[in-house]
Amino acid sequence: MYFYEPAHGHGLAHDPFNAIVGPRPIGWISTLGTNGAPNLAPYSFFNAFNYKPPMIGFSSNGEKDTLRNARQTGEFVWNLATKTLAEQMNATSAAVPYGTDEFALAGLTPAVSQRIAAPRIAESPVNFECKVSDIVHLKGHRGELAAAWLVIGEVVAVHICEELLNDGVFDTFHADIILRAGGPSAYALIGPSTRFDMTRPA
Amino acid sequence: MYFYEPAHGHGLAHDPFNAIVGPRPIGWISTLGTNGAPNLAPYSFFNAFNYKPPMIGFSSNGEKDTLRNARQTGEFVWNLATKTLAEQMNATSAAVPYGTDEFALAGLTPAVSQRIAAPRIAESPVNFECKVSDIVHLKGHRGELAAAWLVIGEVVAVHICEELLNDGVFDTFHADIILRAGGPSAYALIGPSTRFDMTRPA
Repeated sequence: MYFYEPAHGHGLAHDPFNAIVGPRPIGWISTLGTNGAPNLAPYSFFNAFNYKPPMIGFSSNGEKDTLRNARQTGEFVWNLATKTLAEQMNATSAAVPYGTDEFALAGLTPAVSQRIAAPRIAESPVNFECKVSDIVHLKGHRGELAAAWLVIGEVVAVHICEELLNDGVFDTFHADIILRAGGPSAYALIGPSTRFDMTRPA
Repeated sequence: MYFYEPAHGHGLAHDPFNAIVGPRPIGWISTLGTNGAPNLAPYSFFNAFNYKPPMIGFSSNGEKDTLRNARQTGEFVWNLATKTLAEQMNATSAAVPYGTDEFALAGLTPAVSQRIAAPRIAESPVNFECKVSDIVHLKGHRGELAAAWLVIGEVVAVHICEELLNDGVFDTFHADIILRAGGPSAYALIGPSTRFDMTRPA
């Protein structure tokens, strides 16, 4: 086994960390600034955290616009990233000045949300309207603060494209979901052939 | 679009939440109890959160043994779940009494860690030795506490099977990584055919 301690460097051609923990669901987050400007950006460190109530969260590495807006308004929307929207999703990852409308930049349409003011992506087949429940400043095990914040929100409203519901069941493997993998450019497309099943032991 | 508010029920045959946010990296976590008993369990809500220092976290729905051990010892190990280990990983998800050795239950071998006392899974091709940096009690947006805790740890040591390093690069798509999908039984196997690439805009 190759062994290293991150505090002393990995000694490899590339840091393997985000290639090992992956592929990862994409946190494609839309927010509204207090100045009225919509914001849209993909986050690589994102997941669900709780069922009842449904909660999700994403980690902002640095003081990004999404973090600022979520903190100031207490709201965000998560949008499902699919293969059809891959290029647009990627376009929203560009580093642009605060106030830039990434919806316009990527050719996406903001749709009105039902329970919050932050806009949804009309083209995305699933949107979760979320209210911020906690923002955790991440710290190392010795207590030293990192330049990263975990934004956690409760899902208060859900929109799902009817075509992705089959007899009332959402089929992960027919939604063309894309995931983020390691390195600067790698993604995974989840198709039906990737599926296998195991029954949980009693 | 199908619309619902989780607080008022989803109105579908199955709750689509964990089928939508997925497939997800698996948090296969080993810990050591203060009584000396090793524990091993897979967590469905898991991800990386930060690069420097590398940090990962998993959500414990309920007061599970892993949470107890992580809280009491300040340590845990994350182990990569691959197709070869799928049945063993699944076996460690059984609900068993506190003190049951899931390593023995699943036919897995505990390996000594280098920087912490919690054991690694010898058969897993990647292990992250972690020191707990925070345990966040999850709450809804109105501040009501959920029966869930997010355990966040700093990765202090890493073991990687040399065969998965190609010229110093970890290849996500040749590691036979498995992910958790929705419903009671669905998983995804990530193979080379799932990969596509997009270059991030400047």
